[in-house]
Amino acid sequence: MHLNILQRKTQKLMLSNSLRKFVKSLQQKKYREETGCFIVEGAKNTVELLQSKTFAVRHVLCTEAFALQHHSLISRVPFVICSERDLEQMGTFQSNDAAIAVGEMQHYDLQNFTPQGLVLVLDGVRDPGNMGTIIRLADWFGCSAMVCAHDCVDFYNPKVLNASMGSFLRVKVYYTTLANYLKNATLPVIGATLQGTSMYAYSFPREGMLLLGSEAHGISPELMPLINQQVTIPNFGGAESLNVGMATAVLLSWWRGHI
Amino acid sequence: MHLNILQRKTQKLMLSNSLRKFVKSLQQKKYREETGCFIVEGAKNTVELLQSKTFAVRHVLCTEAFALQHHSLISRVPFVICSERDLEQMGTFQSNDAAIAVGEMQHYDLQNFTPQGLVLVLDGVRDPGNMGTIIRLADWFGCSAMVCAHDCVDFYNPKVLNASMGSFLRVKVYYTTLANYLKNATLPVIGATLQGTSMYAYSFPREGMLLLGSEAHGISPELMPLINQQVTIPNFGGAESLNVGMATAVLLSWWRGHI
Repeated sequence: MHLNILQRKTQKLMLSNSLRKFVKSLQQKKYREETGCFIVEGAKNTVELLQSKTFAVRHVLCTEAFALQHHSLISRVPFVICSERDLEQMGTFQSNDAAIAVGEMQHYDLQNFTPQGLVLVLDGVRDPGNMGTIIRLADWFGCSAMVCAHDCVDFYNPKVLNASMGSFLRVKVYYTTLANYLKNATLPVIGATLQGTSMYAYSFPREGMLLLGSEAHGISPELMPLINQQVTIPNFGGAESLNVGMATAVLLSWWRGHI
Repeated sequence: MHLNILQRKTQKLMLSNSLRKFVKSLQQKKYREETGCFIVEGAKNTVELLQSKTFAVRHVLCTEAFALQHHSLISRVPFVICSERDLEQMGTFQSNDAAIAVGEMQHYDLQNFTPQGLVLVLDGVRDPGNMGTIIRLADWFGCSAMVCAHDCVDFYNPKVLNASMGSFLRVKVYYTTLANYLKNATLPVIGATLQGTSMYAYSFPREGMLLLGSEAHGISPELMPLINQQVTIPNFGGAESLNVGMATAVLLSWWRGHI
């Protein structure tokens, strides 16, 4: 009976083999670029994407329970009722009892970007979970944009978007060649390194570029001369390093507390 | 020729089916408790465990390359040369080109523990990656002990130990019933909640118990009356929450900067 209501009122589709194949293909950058589409998975990300005013939603694939719970949201877009198993086969989640949404990519043009506040600049961050975490932290601490080297993981990788817990909708992520970009930076470049001034002794500017490298390789040697100030998170124990997500959490919270 | 050298000088074993089964079984708490053993995976964790003075190592299973590189370390313990595929089949890593080490568990007795500095107290932290991250943060910021509710993930879960990147060797983790424990706490109990005093306005004590709950469920209602001070990480953007690992990073770094 519930399903009947959904069927009458809304744009319900069938899960065809071609749709199944299309959704699954969006795990790969090549197909995202060909089609201009991306996926997000799980209830929170799907709901946030549907509520977003900046991203168009092409399809929602969801369980009946999700459809009934979020009927007013999904009825605006073409949607397909499918099983949890279908969702797990098409997506990256080991278990997904809610939904996958297909969105249309937006490309942000660095030409139109005027840096404000603290801008995160990432070099060599290849792990999608770290990247998603950093996007979420940027959102929490009110940084509305990030600039990434081309060797960072793709923003539209579903693992990045999923890990951002909806924050990908509010943080603009630009990709560029960092050496060129930082050479022309109008704000001070603060580099997170292991041999800088203690963060606790450093007076953060209100505006700047905070450059972070990967845990394994740090900041690329070619970028080091472009740093105006090296800053370090002091170590009080035995751990050898912090990962780039944790370092971002520490630096952003300290910056926010001192401006 | 290299292998010949290893064979002559050291306690090299064969990878028997029973050893293979034993190592694999240690992914499960039940078998860890039966045998008193645990595993860690990967080069860094294995090397750190071998260097530790507090944990005994029962076996090392490793690739030939790892054995040659760390010959002086592994020659002190019984070891087995095996393939990457063997390591991946016995362990939790999707890819492991180095080693698995079998260690002997230590049980920390809360009776013998005198809290010092800031003690992390965890309630309902079930995700092994988060728990490992928190152990690593505790180590970095010089907190030598953590007290966990029984519903937290097991310290000896291989995913916890692996994510701690060796820090499990330096941070003692106790399990107890938190309601009883916090009732008798001699240090102030600071609870990380969403409706407390801003962390930035709060004057952290040098010594205390920092109580954190899970991202999904927060701190258990029965523990709330035992909190002396609620503290909140202010939100400057649109993200709904921080995960418990990120919250720990932020709170520990702020505490360290203000004592």
